[in-house]
Amino acid sequence: MYRVTLEPGRHTVEVPAGTLLSDAILKAGVPLNLPCGGQGRCGRCQVAVREGSVRRRSELRLSRQQLSEGYVLACQSLVESDLVVFIPPQEIVAHAVASEKAAAEVAMPEGVRDWQEHPWVEALAVSLTPPSLDDNTNDLDRLQRDLGLAHGIESVQIGLPLLRTLGRALREADWQVDVVVERANPDGAAANPRLVDVRPRGSGRLLGAAIDVGTTSNVVYLVDLVSGRVLDTASTFNGQISCGEDVISRIIYSRREGGLAHLQQLVIGTVNGLLEELLERNGATPREVVRLCVAGNTTMMHLFLGIDPQFIRLEPYIPTANHLPPVKAAELGLLANPEAHVDCLPGVAAYVGADITAGVLSSEMYRTEKLTLFIDVGTNGEIVLGNADWLISCACSAGPAFEGAGVRSGMRAIPGAIDEVWINPRTFEPTFRTIGGEAP
Amino acid sequence: MYRVTLEPGRHTVEVPAGTLLSDAILKAGVPLNLPCGGQGRCGRCQVAVREGSVRRRSELRLSRQQLSEGYVLACQSLVESDLVVFIPPQEIVAHAVASEKAAAEVAMPEGVRDWQEHPWVEALAVSLTPPSLDDNTNDLDRLQRDLGLAHGIESVQIGLPLLRTLGRALREADWQVDVVVERANPDGAAANPRLVDVRPRGSGRLLGAAIDVGTTSNVVYLVDLVSGRVLDTASTFNGQISCGEDVISRIIYSRREGGLAHLQQLVIGTVNGLLEELLERNGATPREVVRLCVAGNTTMMHLFLGIDPQFIRLEPYIPTANHLPPVKAAELGLLANPEAHVDCLPGVAAYVGADITAGVLSSEMYRTEKLTLFIDVGTNGEIVLGNADWLISCACSAGPAFEGAGVRSGMRAIPGAIDEVWINPRTFEPTFRTIGGEAP
Repeated sequence: MYRVTLEPGRHTVEVPAGTLLSDAILKAGVPLNLPCGGQGRCGRCQVAVREGSVRRRSELRLSRQQLSEGYVLACQSLVESDLVVFIPPQEIVAHAVASEKAAAEVAMPEGVRDWQEHPWVEALAVSLTPPSLDDNTNDLDRLQRDLGLAHGIESVQIGLPLLRTLGRALREADWQVDVVVERANPDGAAANPRLVDVRPRGSGRLLGAAIDVGTTSNVVYLVDLVSGRVLDTASTFNGQISCGEDVISRIIYSRREGGLAHLQQLVIGTVNGLLEELLERNGATPREVVRLCVAGNTTMMHLFLGIDPQFIRLEPYIPTANHLPPVKAAELGLLANPEAHVDCLPGVAAYVGADITAGVLSSEMYRTEKLTLFIDVGTNGEIVLGNADWLISCACSAGPAFEGAGVRSGMRAIPGAIDEVWINPRTFEPTFRTIGGEAP
Repeated sequence: MYRVTLEPGRHTVEVPAGTLLSDAILKAGVPLNLPCGGQGRCGRCQVAVREGSVRRRSELRLSRQQLSEGYVLACQSLVESDLVVFIPPQEIVAHAVASEKAAAEVAMPEGVRDWQEHPWVEALAVSLTPPSLDDNTNDLDRLQRDLGLAHGIESVQIGLPLLRTLGRALREADWQVDVVVERANPDGAAANPRLVDVRPRGSGRLLGAAIDVGTTSNVVYLVDLVSGRVLDTASTFNGQISCGEDVISRIIYSRREGGLAHLQQLVIGTVNGLLEELLERNGATPREVVRLCVAGNTTMMHLFLGIDPQFIRLEPYIPTANHLPPVKAAELGLLANPEAHVDCLPGVAAYVGADITAGVLSSEMYRTEKLTLFIDVGTNGEIVLGNADWLISCACSAGPAFEGAGVRSGMRAIPGAIDEVWINPRTFEPTFRTIGGEAP
């Protein structure tokens, strides 16, 4: 075992000989940038070895001067002795998401306002007649019968997890319950309404969560499903960043032993962290979250669901699916009612995903006569041009502009980056603002 | 720690002071009879302490003479020293199921013969056009498209586990696949066909399993879903016997901490053992088992699915459900295709279960004009009287006659029990046969 000391901060970690320096740094809890996912392609994980020696696998993207100053690529260097390593500050992932402001207000498109008259998820009050020796109907048929009498629902579907506790739930509520029913079948087939929860009368709210799974940032909106109001939002970096900053790097990472499962855990963990924050801040429980909706690019949707994304990267670039089936929160381990359906917005192609569909829908450009241009510049950049008659889209990687991989002029959106430029109306002087007010 | 030695056989086990003697015996791997599930009610777990001492909680059902001979109830005695304990042979669970013979031939009722023209589960051959840059349709839509062209199926449902591996499955099969499709929706709602499996063309059979979950014995039939032929059967004792021999004892056991989960594991483990035996004997894999069907009494169905059965025992005796929803094999951990539906036959009431429904259906008494009596005497005994116009049923515990709990005249169906009596047509002498040909 060798001791690796990291500067600044003097974190230390003990690792066996031959450990990748990047793994040692991550093990020490320092969030190192690995934009290309540790392939030695991007040259972003440069660190300086101040004491001790490493074995270098690749020196790609290091200048002669850097080599003489002891710089190495952390993802391409094996620990061979006790080390003191200096990590330049720009290589540490900055934990500040710039999109908080944009996430504040969301407009509801015109066409979907009838949801309040015909809600997909409802809590229906039911007073059951308690069973007796004269009326020994079983619990499920009894619930079905009284749900039919009170609300005209002829037949409901119920899943095993809810059935397992139904008997106790009815008795603990003294037969006075709210039945959370999902009326429509999200996969489009005609089907009976589905039971999501059975809870004591008047307990709990009907909450929904809208989840934006970006390659870089994840945002969750907590929604009151009765009023339609966005109650709160929270966002943070996607935990997958430590496995690569762009989708290609993550697809390559997913090919490792256990890589796909690890990537899925990371993004589910990130979203669960945001859900936990929102629930705590709003005094709510996971059980109250009865419906979720997710949008993201095609690769992110695959990774979020744990679907093998490898063929998205290889010519002819084929996703497993663009229209994803509804999934239960329990299947993904999301912090919500286990029976809540998670709707995955549909995408269009390997590099035109559900994030674009969401943008086209909420901007309502698909309803207008005017020729409209929709631009989404994120880690992947997409553009949609069209109107009510036609829509055309294309996409390319826009990540380097934001993530700094290979960028020579400019920087990431970290403190000191210019984020606003305007002309002073009095002096006509150009003026700018930087993130954190620091020197540009 | 004290050492407990069991006679005959001289099994030994070390246990901490205060351990229940019955737990020590089970830990030593000796299958002791606990018909009442260890409540001290039935008096069947009588063992003789030859050396050492125990603390007795109850002496119920022990005679003065037995007490003087050192007999104790194993489920009511705590280990207080090293022990030598004698277990009478009749207290050990005999592992021989008498119903093997009856399980040999099953008649298919007349009315269900149209399944061969309209099978619920089919393997449909599909040759997909491989994707190209000119036709970059995603895998699921491509499969759907070619399934529509070749077999007229407009829209299919797919679950997340199958979707996760679809891309790889199609490419490994070089786009030549058999798609296992379940056409009808077993919960009765109109719905699209469902994908159960996607496998290389011509690989694998279509197998089904019919499972009889008896309180005492479990039987599994392996069925070829194309020919309808029963390929093989296997049976053994329900592993739950160590937690009580009748349904009431098992319901009481299910109230213990972790008791319900333990009971479910035991019965699923028993059924999986039988499935493993059948698959091995017939050179088949779990993936080939694409549909399962289960019948049992109401309590057994609850325990098989892990549904809390406690209200079946308490007045007014209410099951959670009689018509159970379809469940996937993966939800129960059954050794079968994870996407295979497990159909649970419907029951009628707390003590008239799906085993009786199965009997009424397969005997076709519900179609005849003649007044018919159907008798099922198992651990629980049920009788159905009626014809095509009406059916009436009642039930009571018949277990003691078979299990020997509290029986003074007679014995269990173990070696030496009389299992056939007839009159010799020549001598007119009554003659009998015993199990194993041993002395009666």
